Amino acid sequence: MSRLKEALRVSTEKVNAALDGYIPHSTDTDRRLFDAMRYSTLAGGKRLRPFLVLNSAALFDVPLDWSMSSAAAIEMVHTYSLVHDDLPAMDDDDLRRGQPTCHKKFDEATAILAGDSLLTLAFELIAAPDGHPEPAVRAEMTHRLATAAGGRGMAGGQMMDLAAEDSALDLDAVIRLQRGKTGALFRFSCEAGAILAQRGGAERDALTRYADHVGLAFQITDDLLDLEGTEADLGKAVGKDAAAGKATFVDLLGLEEARRRAGQLVDDAIAVLQPFGDKADLLRDVARYIVARKN
Amino acid sequence: MSRLKEALRVSTEKVNAALDGYIPHSTDTDRRLFDAMRYSTLAGGKRLRPFLVLNSAALFDVPLDWSMSSAAAIEMVHTYSLVHDDLPAMDDDDLRRGQPTCHKKFDEATAILAGDSLLTLAFELIAAPDGHPEPAVRAEMTHRLATAAGGRGMAGGQMMDLAAEDSALDLDAVIRLQRGKTGALFRFSCEAGAILAQRGGAERDALTRYADHVGLAFQITDDLLDLEGTEADLGKAVGKDAAAGKATFVDLLGLEEARRRAGQLVDDAIAVLQPFGDKADLLRDVARYIVARKN
Repeated sequence: MSRLKEALRVSTEKVNAALDGYIPHSTDTDRRLFDAMRYSTLAGGKRLRPFLVLNSAALFDVPLDWSMSSAAAIEMVHTYSLVHDDLPAMDDDDLRRGQPTCHKKFDEATAILAGDSLLTLAFELIAAPDGHPEPAVRAEMTHRLATAAGGRGMAGGQMMDLAAEDSALDLDAVIRLQRGKTGALFRFSCEAGAILAQRGGAERDALTRYADHVGLAFQITDDLLDLEGTEADLGKAVGKDAAAGKATFVDLLGLEEARRRAGQLVDDAIAVLQPFGDKADLLRDVARYIVARKN
Repeated sequence: MSRLKEALRVSTEKVNAALDGYIPHSTDTDRRLFDAMRYSTLAGGKRLRPFLVLNSAALFDVPLDWSMSSAAAIEMVHTYSLVHDDLPAMDDDDLRRGQPTCHKKFDEATAILAGDSLLTLAFELIAAPDGHPEPAVRAEMTHRLATAAGGRGMAGGQMMDLAAEDSALDLDAVIRLQRGKTGALFRFSCEAGAILAQRGGAERDALTRYADHVGLAFQITDDLLDLEGTEADLGKAVGKDAAAGKATFVDLLGLEEARRRAGQLVDDAIAVLQPFGDKADLLRDVARYIVARKN
């Protein structure tokens, strides 16, 4: 895993520098907005989604200059979703990445606006002329990111998650929920490489399947960590899903089968990368890491 | 005004039909999200911003098929901003367009997600391949819409507005605030015509200046209506700015000067349209209507 560890460290450093550069400062009375955007985005985080963007793009030798704005954009969309999910009206969380959540550090209105503005900035970035040189690529990336983040993607999954508090979901429904809530952004992150390289067909399909396997494995692992992890390791509250009566993969599959299923998904994810040869080794490593992680 | 009235009626009908078609339905557990998006967007409204998009595009004979998705997108962004602004943590309003606000009709979490999803859907639409045939135009429209809606545009203006509750703003600060909060989307709506027609230079500049004049006139009129209008006419609460101790144009300029200034801005807006000849008559009419309206 030390190859992955080093690659993650280097990638995270670059992504953090890019995010720092992309989110403006302000000295006007809107300062609080930018402070909150910067606070939530630069508070740390695994930067997994940008890593997937950069490394799926690297399969096709896409220059970093062309892929970095998309990598930063996906992290902004992810951060916006956390900021809004943490709000009192939603999951009501006080702690995120080991720090006070945005509305705790600032206030609710600022957290709503900071989330809104991060989402908007992501689209500004991904469509900007100083990113990918080909306008058709920028338009397609925008369209796909919006589809992944919106009502038929991440936001829809979050709505299903809220609805789940009052109803007993079966396995199919939980898979559908997670395909939106977590899966859609994972899928976009991996497809991004093929779109940025203007490749379609089998290569794009393989990345999509890789992403779907990895996304589901990620979520099953999240459910396992919510049950077995500690608040100190995770930097956020644990056991909340169980307390809210939400059906998790562990409830529906049992502990052992959930672990087995996550392992199987990782094997499947690694298998579909076969056509890319050695070039996909980091993507294989990250699939293994996703189920082995402690936070 | 009957020429404008008829044009607005026809345009509103088309825009409403487009919005109805663009916002999906759902029968899954995320149904509530789409119901809320549809409720807030299809509740009526003057559809001024889409009107500006369609009529600035008509100056250059841009086909309706190419401009309608942008017109619908701008209305979605406007609606998202209203849904979030109405939230208890923000302006805490119960009534909008004469109906219960989104969080009153549904709940806060749903209103947050519905706003998020409307914003996201706007970008999905404006970047979609079945809109404008030229990818460079779709990418530029996306980039400009995001700039207008984000932290350095509408959302930043809203942050300034929230900050204004605790501080006495001078005229410059209020103009800066409104340039973001209302002006940025007006500007985008009018620039849209030139971008969709791939025109730059003097024509685009004229539309930008028209938009800036009209946007400011619109906001001064809003302040006058907040003071002089009735809840029944406006379909929303009145006198809230004064109650919150926010400086309005009327406070800073006085009633008479505010009226005079709005009238002057309309004259200026009409004057910059000169190069477009008769083709801009509806844009002239709408500038006059913006200060004459009762809601």
